[in-house]
Amino acid sequence: MRWARFESNGKPSYGIIEGSEIEAVEGDMLGSYKRTGRRVALDKAKLLVPLVPQTFYAAGLNYVEHIMEQAKMHGREPNVPEKPDIGYRANNALIAHDEDVVIPKDATDKVQYEAEIVAVVGKKAKNLTEKDALSCIFGYTIGNDVSERTWQKDDRTFWRAKNTDTFKPMGPWIETEVDLDKLRTIVKVNGKTTIEFDTNHMLFGIARYISAMSKYLTLHPGDMIWMGTEGSAPNLKDGDVVEIEINQIGKLRNRFVREK
Amino acid sequence: MRWARFESNGKPSYGIIEGSEIEAVEGDMLGSYKRTGRRVALDKAKLLVPLVPQTFYAAGLNYVEHIMEQAKMHGREPNVPEKPDIGYRANNALIAHDEDVVIPKDATDKVQYEAEIVAVVGKKAKNLTEKDALSCIFGYTIGNDVSERTWQKDDRTFWRAKNTDTFKPMGPWIETEVDLDKLRTIVKVNGKTTIEFDTNHMLFGIARYISAMSKYLTLHPGDMIWMGTEGSAPNLKDGDVVEIEINQIGKLRNRFVREK
Repeated sequence: MRWARFESNGKPSYGIIEGSEIEAVEGDMLGSYKRTGRRVALDKAKLLVPLVPQTFYAAGLNYVEHIMEQAKMHGREPNVPEKPDIGYRANNALIAHDEDVVIPKDATDKVQYEAEIVAVVGKKAKNLTEKDALSCIFGYTIGNDVSERTWQKDDRTFWRAKNTDTFKPMGPWIETEVDLDKLRTIVKVNGKTTIEFDTNHMLFGIARYISAMSKYLTLHPGDMIWMGTEGSAPNLKDGDVVEIEINQIGKLRNRFVREK
Repeated sequence: MRWARFESNGKPSYGIIEGSEIEAVEGDMLGSYKRTGRRVALDKAKLLVPLVPQTFYAAGLNYVEHIMEQAKMHGREPNVPEKPDIGYRANNALIAHDEDVVIPKDATDKVQYEAEIVAVVGKKAKNLTEKDALSCIFGYTIGNDVSERTWQKDDRTFWRAKNTDTFKPMGPWIETEVDLDKLRTIVKVNGKTTIEFDTNHMLFGIARYISAMSKYLTLHPGDMIWMGTEGSAPNLKDGDVVEIEINQIGKLRNRFVREK
């Protein structure tokens, strides 16, 4: 099943995507809801961030080539994590599919995408084994963990490098039926493929992360976990359009514009 | 004005504290609300976390002695920040006044308090000057940024060291009328004072932080900013009771219990 959040009569509404339409629902995507019979054309709907995270988790370093590339860029030894240490991102930075990433005036030219699969938690969970870990997942969406690499080197935390307003595109929707091992992430800049990788080929998989996290913290419905990215990315300039496609899920597209 | 959140007929309710009573209100503490005339005795009310943060910010290293003590403990050179880099904490870890901090079985004995003033954002804000920065503040409360120091050294992020369930006591309530320069933080363990400091004697003040943050990110009503702590703290053991008092605001009290 494919869940969207969209603007309906000026208000946010959840909806179920069927073919080329969205049917609006009343209630809670993660709880009880009712179909309304009210349908809008998907290509005419203004899509919103599919769900605003309760807690916005991010895995960071979770693909081997990306770790090597990052180390090279920052001129240091690669630091391959020995265990899954989850990090955080912030809701102020979220934008939806087809909204613009605004690069601040004082940013350097080192603004890059990071293509990520996002796991959406649907059930309260604590102390999950790795085997049971995916039982708390509602579905998956796509995130672009936009990063200003110069700031990433200078900021003690990643607040500005990664959480500047508009730096966290997410969407276009949430897909609940996914075969993780068959997913492939493809990124295009202005229509040209810049990287392709097996989405699930992670240093620590989603189940491993959730099991480790849930030993110490309770996961709640609406928590979202961004799973990290692979490889390196080109610097993006004013007007570039980045598309991140993960088969079975969808395609997240955003234009990058430099603040005037 | 002093705002509390408390359990009323099994449901969370906001209320205004007057003398020894709380008057329940309907609506939103940060928006429009209506007094109900329904009053309960403050000392009989079950207080809740006064507001669940939208985004949960934390200043980290923001008092000079604390930075020196942390460096000594971790056996490294003190790393005094050159600019205010804001960090993040997570809502899963929040507990209210008088609730217990549960130290996990596998934690070391290096579990310590950090006594902090918390700024509560009441208005949407972007690009505030330092002079105008406090205009977005609704009020102040108290936070205990409980930390497991061994994990803090080993975790790439502070997720487990600082965001284990129950590691973020906050409360008891929010005070809107505060003279920052006259605040003093006093911490007691089992009734004995362990540290006292001028709350506003920060490396970067609240206005400086908010001005720096709001250059890149929009602050939203309900965002909360924990401002860091001073000095060092003793290791806490099973049964210890920690009280953090900030005059004009109140007293946050929590017992520490070790998981059986």
